[in-house]
Amino acid sequence: MIATKLISEARSHRDSSILVDPLLSPLPDTLPKNVTKIADSILTPEELKITSYDVPELLQAIRSEEYSCEAVTRAFLRRAALAQKLTNCLTELLPSRAIARAKYLDSLPISEHGRFQGLPVSIKEHHGMEGLTNNGGYVAWIGKPQDGRCSTQEVLLQAGAVLHARTTQPQTTMHLETSTNIYGATTNPWNTDLASGGSSDGESALIACRGSILGMGGDIGGSIRCPAANTGIYGFKPTPRRIGKLCSLAAVSGQEGIIPTQGPLASSRSGLMLFMETYLSYEPWIKDDYLVPIPWRPVTLPAKLKIAIMWSDDIVTPHPPVTRALKEVAKSLSEAGIELVEWKPEGHDDCWDITQALYYEDDGKHVEKLIAEGGEEMLLLTKWLIKDNENVKYRTVEGVWELKDRRNAYRLKYNELWLSTGAKDNHPVDAILCPAGPGAAPPHGNAKYWNYTSQWNLLEYPGVVFPVTFVDQALDGKDEAYVPKNDKDRFNWELYEPGKYVDAPVGLQIVTRRFEDEKCLDILEAVEKAMGRK
Amino acid sequence: MIATKLISEARSHRDSSILVDPLLSPLPDTLPKNVTKIADSILTPEELKITSYDVPELLQAIRSEEYSCEAVTRAFLRRAALAQKLTNCLTELLPSRAIARAKYLDSLPISEHGRFQGLPVSIKEHHGMEGLTNNGGYVAWIGKPQDGRCSTQEVLLQAGAVLHARTTQPQTTMHLETSTNIYGATTNPWNTDLASGGSSDGESALIACRGSILGMGGDIGGSIRCPAANTGIYGFKPTPRRIGKLCSLAAVSGQEGIIPTQGPLASSRSGLMLFMETYLSYEPWIKDDYLVPIPWRPVTLPAKLKIAIMWSDDIVTPHPPVTRALKEVAKSLSEAGIELVEWKPEGHDDCWDITQALYYEDDGKHVEKLIAEGGEEMLLLTKWLIKDNENVKYRTVEGVWELKDRRNAYRLKYNELWLSTGAKDNHPVDAILCPAGPGAAPPHGNAKYWNYTSQWNLLEYPGVVFPVTFVDQALDGKDEAYVPKNDKDRFNWELYEPGKYVDAPVGLQIVTRRFEDEKCLDILEAVEKAMGRK
Repeated sequence: MIATKLISEARSHRDSSILVDPLLSPLPDTLPKNVTKIADSILTPEELKITSYDVPELLQAIRSEEYSCEAVTRAFLRRAALAQKLTNCLTELLPSRAIARAKYLDSLPISEHGRFQGLPVSIKEHHGMEGLTNNGGYVAWIGKPQDGRCSTQEVLLQAGAVLHARTTQPQTTMHLETSTNIYGATTNPWNTDLASGGSSDGESALIACRGSILGMGGDIGGSIRCPAANTGIYGFKPTPRRIGKLCSLAAVSGQEGIIPTQGPLASSRSGLMLFMETYLSYEPWIKDDYLVPIPWRPVTLPAKLKIAIMWSDDIVTPHPPVTRALKEVAKSLSEAGIELVEWKPEGHDDCWDITQALYYEDDGKHVEKLIAEGGEEMLLLTKWLIKDNENVKYRTVEGVWELKDRRNAYRLKYNELWLSTGAKDNHPVDAILCPAGPGAAPPHGNAKYWNYTSQWNLLEYPGVVFPVTFVDQALDGKDEAYVPKNDKDRFNWELYEPGKYVDAPVGLQIVTRRFEDEKCLDILEAVEKAMGRK
Repeated sequence: MIATKLISEARSHRDSSILVDPLLSPLPDTLPKNVTKIADSILTPEELKITSYDVPELLQAIRSEEYSCEAVTRAFLRRAALAQKLTNCLTELLPSRAIARAKYLDSLPISEHGRFQGLPVSIKEHHGMEGLTNNGGYVAWIGKPQDGRCSTQEVLLQAGAVLHARTTQPQTTMHLETSTNIYGATTNPWNTDLASGGSSDGESALIACRGSILGMGGDIGGSIRCPAANTGIYGFKPTPRRIGKLCSLAAVSGQEGIIPTQGPLASSRSGLMLFMETYLSYEPWIKDDYLVPIPWRPVTLPAKLKIAIMWSDDIVTPHPPVTRALKEVAKSLSEAGIELVEWKPEGHDDCWDITQALYYEDDGKHVEKLIAEGGEEMLLLTKWLIKDNENVKYRTVEGVWELKDRRNAYRLKYNELWLSTGAKDNHPVDAILCPAGPGAAPPHGNAKYWNYTSQWNLLEYPGVVFPVTFVDQALDGKDEAYVPKNDKDRFNWELYEPGKYVDAPVGLQIVTRRFEDEKCLDILEAVEKAMGRK
């Protein structure tokens, strides 16, 4: 009963937060599954224009005083409120504090705004926000006051950002799609039958609806990259220790087997780049010395890039649209004179076994306890990960040491594997191009294969996801003759029917070596240019 | 019985390894306690000359073909063999492989030697060596074959070093002085009644005897800095993840609460600097991606340095010679125009509690088991640290998480403390000058206070130790009226009598912020110049 009351209060709080001024006109009685065009009939032309910019263009428009910070903020607040109605992506909108902040910035000379110039930025709820509460997806934590400093946001504010929205995450923040007993499910704006991904799903749905063009998510197994791929936007998981993580709420805060990292999601590649460069230009490692003091370093790419393509991890074969996306990009790269080789994955199944075990050294008991404390139901994807998982066990300290030894040995071996690709020409591959998941955004409740992203969390390799294409009903027929290799592969193969994936975006992932974050984004640029993009 | 046989074999192996060619002439029947001058009557003038150089001068002498690599290697082998006879600092000398290597280098053009040009380098035994065995101070591990790659040594060899000697460490490699049931105690060449420090004691004794002028030790609580201070040499503990640690043998390899690091000990500041710069110039992070890819960066020190002096950690008051050393250096710094402030330590006792608990998450059971497996006795300093220590307990994973949370909070708080020293002038202190221990090298068996070094291991701050003075019988009288603050302070105070510390060197420590390794050594240079050194 207490839980019901708390949930109802959390929802009321969110619902009243989106009562923007002026109020949104009513939505059509019947909404299509693809809601990405609804804004066109609800927002003003100016709001549509402001929210259509990508990050550098919007900053330029503010710098040139084409728009005030307040006008920009108000446009994004209205579009974010609409995104909430369409996809259920917010835990709260922040109109009062965002408008006050925008007005304050407008009162300063443009030159004193900082490099973010009044840019609205959305934040995944469990990263916290000064003076507000955090629930992190748990009923038990509804109303929990923010405790401690939010180091990333301090930098964002120092740089002149306006924090305008807080976004949903799943129960436990450990699903690759989103539902909580507090807010229900977040849906994919391209097809509301599908998941927007997780755990930074609120960010991806909001950005895909252009209720934000830059947001902060977090990633310990794919939580930035999966939602970016599912919704046709850009998402970057940097090497851990380059972006602060102080005050992010998690059930377990002393776990260090797999280290999470915050990272940006954006409507464009330029948004990711500008974020990384700007954030690091403020030397966040001075106040937060958990961070490695490496500025955003200029990189010179080799004259002829050498990119490995991983068609499959040899465990679960990706769905046809993913394979087609890889083929299309490979063709563009090849035509642009980029050398392509095939990536031979090694031990990705072992890697996932170790990863899951390290997520839950305590057999997930902490999570179970928190769920019980909130009097809420354990959702199926939580149960799947924690209870029905033979790799998740209660460990002794010796057991944890053994897992870390296995992890360290695997890291060393994988680095050797990478370097071995340069054995003949002294040019190891510059990057791996690979799926961001085993398919496009799945129907709700089916995101049960993390390996295409979690692989790079254990290895601490940076990974960026970018949009490539959409599921095509004509081109992406099911391979009915396919013989699955194992149970996971069967589950994934059986899941696919093109008709279930109408309008679903397909993203791919570029991975580079540990701490090659700059190279990762520079290679994305080279890849997109090869694809004929700007 | 088996243990006795193994021990006897290990000693025989060591003893035959030091039968250098030509053999050393017999030592005097009675040795003084201070054995630092014995070499003068045993070695040839040329050997004395070669081994008197510091690293850059020796490299210059090889480069200019004044000496061949072989001549240099032979001189250091003879002097190291002598050091073994005087201080018991070796587990084995490596004459055959060192001379073969030197001859090989001599066969190459000088320009192809690599930056270390044939420099003899000694290695702490538990860091391992390709093709040899490692015991790590445990009887059970006598004869254990080297397993895996020694990443630091790969770089040393790539750079043209000659590995000529392997040095002792204590049982468990976790004492701040050295004794094992295999080799007995290593003694301090300045006064053989005193400890040479630990756990990289063999290195310190060997280098103080100039049987090596550059060696690799390791440090998780003071194991480089304490021996350097005890023997009047230089030792540098960098920020972890700047120097590789692959293949170092430890009872517990998955423990990550406090991360150990390898680091150099040398006869001069220039040796440390040259090592760091050279090592990192080979980009070791490519093969060992555990490392952070930060090259040795040039630093511009502020025009007027601001150095904090920590006279005491407010728990154990250092002995009079340490305080005098601090006063003398402070006077020199002040006269050189360096701004001095007082460091107010916070929570160093908590820090030590957390540190010990994280060393032994398993209550030391792994260590106990290994000791039992070898059929050897648990030495008193092992017992003191593991068995008689209320902070060492068997932890659950939740218990370890809690410790890591406390550690992280302490790190954050200490960083804030550091930055707060710039609150008024926007110039936080550039470094802390502090003791390297609560006294000079203690009589064997008494190294029970680690905080002056271990403090900076938990914080991951780099620390360098440099020689300042020697215990002075006239100047360093005991303060008989002193009233100890607590049991630890009483133990330390009672331990002191100047007469027990004849000829003991006194070193001090300079500490900078995390990853400010370059600044740490540059400030040491500034400090030594202020002291009138070159």
